[in-house]
Amino acid sequence: MSRRRLHLNINILNAGFYGSAWRAPQSDPTAFVDVGHFVKTARIAERGTFDAVFLADVPTLSDRPELRPYQALEPTIVLATIAAHTSHIGLIGTASSTYNDPYNIARRFASLDLASGGRVGWNVVTTAEASASRNFGFDAVTAHAARYERAAEFTEVVTRLWDSWEDGALVADKASGRFVDLDRVHAIDHVGPHFRVSGPLNVPRSPQGRPVVIQAGGSDDGRQLAAAHAEAIFSVAHTIAEATAFAADIRGRAARLGRDPSGIVFLPGLGTLLGSTEAEARRREDELWSLIPGDYSLRRLAGVLQLNPESIDLDTPLPTSIPLPADGGHTFFLATLQIARRDGLTVRQLLRKLGGSTGHRLFIGTPKALADEIEAWFLAGAADGFNLMPDVLPDGLEIFVDEVVPILRRRGIFRSTYDTRTLRGHFGLVEPDNVFARTARAAV
Amino acid sequence: MSRRRLHLNINILNAGFYGSAWRAPQSDPTAFVDVGHFVKTARIAERGTFDAVFLADVPTLSDRPELRPYQALEPTIVLATIAAHTSHIGLIGTASSTYNDPYNIARRFASLDLASGGRVGWNVVTTAEASASRNFGFDAVTAHAARYERAAEFTEVVTRLWDSWEDGALVADKASGRFVDLDRVHAIDHVGPHFRVSGPLNVPRSPQGRPVVIQAGGSDDGRQLAAAHAEAIFSVAHTIAEATAFAADIRGRAARLGRDPSGIVFLPGLGTLLGSTEAEARRREDELWSLIPGDYSLRRLAGVLQLNPESIDLDTPLPTSIPLPADGGHTFFLATLQIARRDGLTVRQLLRKLGGSTGHRLFIGTPKALADEIEAWFLAGAADGFNLMPDVLPDGLEIFVDEVVPILRRRGIFRSTYDTRTLRGHFGLVEPDNVFARTARAAV
Repeated sequence: MSRRRLHLNINILNAGFYGSAWRAPQSDPTAFVDVGHFVKTARIAERGTFDAVFLADVPTLSDRPELRPYQALEPTIVLATIAAHTSHIGLIGTASSTYNDPYNIARRFASLDLASGGRVGWNVVTTAEASASRNFGFDAVTAHAARYERAAEFTEVVTRLWDSWEDGALVADKASGRFVDLDRVHAIDHVGPHFRVSGPLNVPRSPQGRPVVIQAGGSDDGRQLAAAHAEAIFSVAHTIAEATAFAADIRGRAARLGRDPSGIVFLPGLGTLLGSTEAEARRREDELWSLIPGDYSLRRLAGVLQLNPESIDLDTPLPTSIPLPADGGHTFFLATLQIARRDGLTVRQLLRKLGGSTGHRLFIGTPKALADEIEAWFLAGAADGFNLMPDVLPDGLEIFVDEVVPILRRRGIFRSTYDTRTLRGHFGLVEPDNVFARTARAAV
Repeated sequence: MSRRRLHLNINILNAGFYGSAWRAPQSDPTAFVDVGHFVKTARIAERGTFDAVFLADVPTLSDRPELRPYQALEPTIVLATIAAHTSHIGLIGTASSTYNDPYNIARRFASLDLASGGRVGWNVVTTAEASASRNFGFDAVTAHAARYERAAEFTEVVTRLWDSWEDGALVADKASGRFVDLDRVHAIDHVGPHFRVSGPLNVPRSPQGRPVVIQAGGSDDGRQLAAAHAEAIFSVAHTIAEATAFAADIRGRAARLGRDPSGIVFLPGLGTLLGSTEAEARRREDELWSLIPGDYSLRRLAGVLQLNPESIDLDTPLPTSIPLPADGGHTFFLATLQIARRDGLTVRQLLRKLGGSTGHRLFIGTPKALADEIEAWFLAGAADGFNLMPDVLPDGLEIFVDEVVPILRRRGIFRSTYDTRTLRGHFGLVEPDNVFARTARAAV
């Protein structure tokens, strides 16, 4: 009987998750283009026996780059570099199903999976940004539903390509001169509305069979994609109740699609801002808040709500007459807006809750209090773990590894050493059936 | 006044260039999927102060994978791994302009260029293989001329994206909160027959400005693309006269396009099969030849000539009535066929000359004799250096580094230590004008 264990990812968002992280005294302002920063952060996470590092991605220059860094370096390049400097930690990269070809994505992630000994995950995104569409020949972003329809077919093609080599297909026998057993390498001959792909892939299977598929969308389409394909989910949730309801919804959808719902790992996002005392944490927050450039937060809020920034009163709650945005790429933001409305926060309080930039839950307090929260969510079944987003990197992660991880280990819910070597192993996921192997062997 | 210096690349073709390299006693038969093999080989080349490593690429399973390895791992993943384990050597990867989007290629190579401190080159290919086209939604490969037309526009877009950030655009000033100087970041607003790309790229410039563009095509279209864009050229040439004529042709085309023809580095391919004595080299060749699986070589020749393999007599020259193939992806092969016809080689001799697989020049002999040949070509101006293809890796490269490189150094034509840190520096290439910087600064 295997014991349920907590899973921890670190989202390496450049100099850190807080909007002003790059301006903090302890951070490197050019960290976003320095693979050394990513490697250093990943090694700290590996010292903390984390399951994986995670890199987000959008193939366009960010909104308002004059004010803050963004994910500039292409994720698989950074992850290959991290792989070379680590031995166990998982490597999860984002790639868009809207602006890539499935053969190229299947191949690049399969190559990274082999290069890292089976530590790779692919986070499928559909890319909502209009500016990205203009880098790929479109005038505007494709409609949400159409993007997700393409994403579902894209993911199906990628996983079939990953299965196109069976285990044992690579023979490499010098004596006989037999290199590959072609009976175990299969064309996929996919023909669908978006793609025609013959295959097979030109990369053999990795030690974990194939990369882990991850999804993060919270919209209805996103949930359906996750239910069909995701083996781990980066969700957004501010309360145990929300997280529990989300997981139940996805598990129900997965079961209706004929999947085993226990084969999905739920990892809500969790921003962390830690201090030795509650007061120290608040001081750290005050300092970071004071460094957020100019009117960045207000303008971002106004942009999402499609309002004139000057029409917004900072010292009252948002008027209830203002409609919240439809969920088209604003899932994270939307959750925070709903909380602000529920709790009657003023716009100023709302902006501060957004940490200058985002809508994930932000924990502010001591390591002990954070460990208590993590344990509570985990034991309640609201989360299998968390996708951590430290305020400033690497020091926010160092505090977590040195002061929160030991508590979680003492409580027996988090590993002290790695006893698996692949991402699939860390997550406790079984290798999915190889559809071609099953068919081919059944036919014998 | 700078002294002209020899340039050396190593083409890391899996277990080696010879068709049976994977079966040689000293090689690892699964080297093609082991990044450790590529890293080990690159480190030997760096010990030999080589300019760069080079990885070829085709996005499809090779012809007859049951008999021999091929380039399976996606090159930028392998190069990122090599970058992490080396400090100076250049990193050249192949990517197809037919089966990629220019924004993605510009970004991935720019990211690798930053990750490696400015050591990257991009080898533009158009991918002749029909099976590759079927992995990307096509029924057959696009016509040669159309592929090259797309390649020219693709390369233009990529280089403009690389220029879209001027030097100095990244400010990252903590005190003022100014992160990027948007006056130095430019949309490219490209609209052409094949692509519409707004830009700017989301990656700043690297220490070498932008990656080096490399080309290898020998066809008329390929030469024109090289003349327009290439800063280094991997050519095929079996004699000093051929190599000299090829370089003169490209330089002439470049001059007619308004480029400085001296800004192109010519690197003919050079297979090497070395022994301490001539007899030892011949024994090594005999052994490797005996290990080429079955009828592989004959079938490949028959395929290129579109003949029934059984109709070919091994002990006579190819009948002159058999037309040689048109140059549509067979440049290397064609050169060898022409030599065989000129020299009256039997088919058996021709197959042996092809080393089981290819049409590059194959040198068989002692380190001293090879150093003499390299020096002769270099001093005659037929080559600026060579793209080396050792028979078996890594040992064929080790012999070269330990026994040929010292001779070239003693003769004063090859570096003993690196005195530059970028690929552009190693190749003696100047950083091209940034078109946006020139325009923007001129307007001030």
